Amino acid sequence: MVERFVRVQTTGGQIHYGTLQLNREVMIWDAAPWLHGQPTNQVLSPDSYQLLAPCSPSKIVAVGRNYVKHAAEMGDSVPPEPLIFLKPPTTVQAPGCPIWYPPQVKRVDYEGELAVVIGRRTRACPENEALEHIWGYTIANDVTARDLQQREQQWTRAKGFDTFCPLGPWIVREVPSDARLQTFINDAAQPVQSATIDQMVFSPAKLVSFISYVMTLLPGDVVLTGTPAGIGALQVGDRVRVEIEGIGSLLSVVTTPETPWTPPLDPAY
Amino acid sequence: MVERFVRVQTTGGQIHYGTLQLNREVMIWDAAPWLHGQPTNQVLSPDSYQLLAPCSPSKIVAVGRNYVKHAAEMGDSVPPEPLIFLKPPTTVQAPGCPIWYPPQVKRVDYEGELAVVIGRRTRACPENEALEHIWGYTIANDVTARDLQQREQQWTRAKGFDTFCPLGPWIVREVPSDARLQTFINDAAQPVQSATIDQMVFSPAKLVSFISYVMTLLPGDVVLTGTPAGIGALQVGDRVRVEIEGIGSLLSVVTTPETPWTPPLDPAY
Repeated sequence: MVERFVRVQTTGGQIHYGTLQLNREVMIWDAAPWLHGQPTNQVLSPDSYQLLAPCSPSKIVAVGRNYVKHAAEMGDSVPPEPLIFLKPPTTVQAPGCPIWYPPQVKRVDYEGELAVVIGRRTRACPENEALEHIWGYTIANDVTARDLQQREQQWTRAKGFDTFCPLGPWIVREVPSDARLQTFINDAAQPVQSATIDQMVFSPAKLVSFISYVMTLLPGDVVLTGTPAGIGALQVGDRVRVEIEGIGSLLSVVTTPETPWTPPLDPAY
Repeated sequence: MVERFVRVQTTGGQIHYGTLQLNREVMIWDAAPWLHGQPTNQVLSPDSYQLLAPCSPSKIVAVGRNYVKHAAEMGDSVPPEPLIFLKPPTTVQAPGCPIWYPPQVKRVDYEGELAVVIGRRTRACPENEALEHIWGYTIANDVTARDLQQREQQWTRAKGFDTFCPLGPWIVREVPSDARLQTFINDAAQPVQSATIDQMVFSPAKLVSFISYVMTLLPGDVVLTGTPAGIGALQVGDRVRVEIEGIGSLLSVVTTPETPWTPPLDPAY
């Protein structure tokens, strides 16, 4: 069994890092594993916690047009170097929770992505050492207000709304290099996105290295590695699920802003 | 005497919020003033601390082309709505400290700016309530790799290098609405930038309100309000000083990366 690293909030409001057991109990760790945390003897029963995003990044660095077919569907070529942008930490949303559809937006798109979690301070790191700086992998949805993105020169607003970065449900240490990423809408059996992560233009190691020559990456920071072809619009009421082989499945529901929501502990996790 | 809110690191390595007295002693506060901190009885002597950036933002939201003459000098018009972008928190640099000139950059520019410090959680805040959410004002230098900015679609890399956001030297609660912002290079008596902040296209209140309908602003977050006309290049060895009436003077020195530096406690602060 692959170890699954989670972050949870207890019904009493406390936040803990931990590992998720097969019986859905969570063994609490005394700190984030990438900050020298260690497991404790304390265990949370399945009805006593909710999953949060599995890390709390000081920054989220994302990459545009990192799959050839996605660049083509956007009517664009692959950039000669990674095209990086930032999503604010306030975009992070827990698994199973809402994506709030902003009232001033006309089209909100899903973008399923592999997310890299940084394990240590990373500055000016050569590509051949970058994998040692990656602590693990999780799933992200780089939600995008497509109409704003196409209208505005900078993507900050289009990519920066609260809840526009569902993340999780947990972190694993390794992911198969040819793992398949698939995105599903509602109950459709056919995915809207399906690609293997080895189709990336710039690999996770290359991305981490490239970014580290610009800005120092810190433990718990997240790098989003780009979305494959098949992007499309979401409507209020939709459920969107991003799956990556070897990790799991990240479910989100699209709601109007501020809708209260209790994430279900459903079989997806 | 206007109260000056600082953040300092003691020679022992401890970080404190505080207020700077006329005799340069710092009265320590038990937390950030915008997080309900209160003054203690403890005082630091002038030789026992160095100034840090006066807050530690979870995000830095900056605004492009917010002065008409600067938009014109960039060969561009003023955008119909604020043009926002993000600088990562790792850009923040203390007053009196280096701006590292990245080896892969051919032109590094200063951009003197008024910085707004957020006082409380701000989401979907109408413009006429936004001033109540601003805790105070400080000075920033939105340092920019101009060659990368002009070559790349997104500004994240051009604006995102470590040390590219000198911030400080302190926060004041109020700033005159017609305060003059000036930027000086080395010992020149003539400023390279000079404008009053009432020449902004979108006011601080408008900016905070606009951003809050996209992303939740948190206490200690920083909004950079744009630079006036007169931008230009820096060279290694240059000193750049941004002054704003009613606040003070933010000094930086341009060095090669990783240059060790002890910030001088000079008369500028």
